[in-house]
Amino acid sequence: MYDGALGDLIEELGQLPGIGPKSAQRLAFHLLAADGSDVERLTSALHRVKDQVRFCDVCGNVSESERCAICRDQRRSAELICVVEEPKDVLAIERTGEFRGSYHVLGGAINPLEGIGPDDLRIRSLMSRLQGGETKELIIATDPNTEGEATATYLAMLVKPMGFKVTRLASGLPVGGDLEYADEVTLGRAFSGRRDVDS
Amino acid sequence: MYDGALGDLIEELGQLPGIGPKSAQRLAFHLLAADGSDVERLTSALHRVKDQVRFCDVCGNVSESERCAICRDQRRSAELICVVEEPKDVLAIERTGEFRGSYHVLGGAINPLEGIGPDDLRIRSLMSRLQGGETKELIIATDPNTEGEATATYLAMLVKPMGFKVTRLASGLPVGGDLEYADEVTLGRAFSGRRDVDS
Repeated sequence: MYDGALGDLIEELGQLPGIGPKSAQRLAFHLLAADGSDVERLTSALHRVKDQVRFCDVCGNVSESERCAICRDQRRSAELICVVEEPKDVLAIERTGEFRGSYHVLGGAINPLEGIGPDDLRIRSLMSRLQGGETKELIIATDPNTEGEATATYLAMLVKPMGFKVTRLASGLPVGGDLEYADEVTLGRAFSGRRDVDS
Repeated sequence: MYDGALGDLIEELGQLPGIGPKSAQRLAFHLLAADGSDVERLTSALHRVKDQVRFCDVCGNVSESERCAICRDQRRSAELICVVEEPKDVLAIERTGEFRGSYHVLGGAINPLEGIGPDDLRIRSLMSRLQGGETKELIIATDPNTEGEATATYLAMLVKPMGFKVTRLASGLPVGGDLEYADEVTLGRAFSGRRDVDS
């Protein structure tokens, strides 16, 4: 393939997730032709992410200080902890504007096939937070797939005996979706979770 | 969205061609979690590409010196010049091992809709090469699409009166392909370009 610096760049770009050899080549030629200042901004952002971004000591969310902005916010309720798999799930929930409690980021889900067990997730730090005494309810918002469900079940088993209220996000039809195109599992969940129209 | 360094990185990655907001976010989290040395190799490759890679003074191919490796190679015939749109086309042709002449990279194709005319391509430097006197045949290997065909027609119009042989790569069925799935234009070309079985 290409020799020298261009070949090195294509190889490095091709290591990134979702970037195949063709995309890596296209990106490398784009960057070769791009303004030096654009490339400088990209490399500087990369350096700053590696130097400055870390994980919040309390909740595990991405942060540029020991505690993330949400954990430092006094107006956020400490009574509710929403457990998610990844930092990007925090962002998705924040966008709804519906939740004013705090978060706990597990860093993944239990997945025996990939060798990820409870000890590989931030479950121990969740337990110490719960022992702090302020929490009343744990909202488990892991993904609605096999791994997420297994993680939710495991957490509920662990936390319920400690006397906390444990809830799980509702499954059902996506708003704005079309009933006809819903898969059977989702539709089944929507039936079993049906609510009174008055409520 | 994300603040600070992570947000900056997501934004910079999202400016790259073929990388949407979701991919930019996934890439940024991957790079955040990646080894520092991996990210260092990527940024260093980026810097080296910007510092060291330039275009060959003769043919316009990518090069780390004034003249690219192909133009410096004395064993390559100067009698044949293969005209392509982009440096990656040179690589594609080199992989076939079929061509031992030299190249000329136009840097694109004539595209009136995007305001790219003959003056935006490296056509003037092609003309000076042809006046050098060594060339006998110009093989036009621009893409087999509207812009590539227009560029080929324009070049042929310019170069044929100067007494050079001008050829165009054959169009037809891709080898290993299935006749049934060929589009009608390709199939039409395959008919009009049919050859004696003996040849």
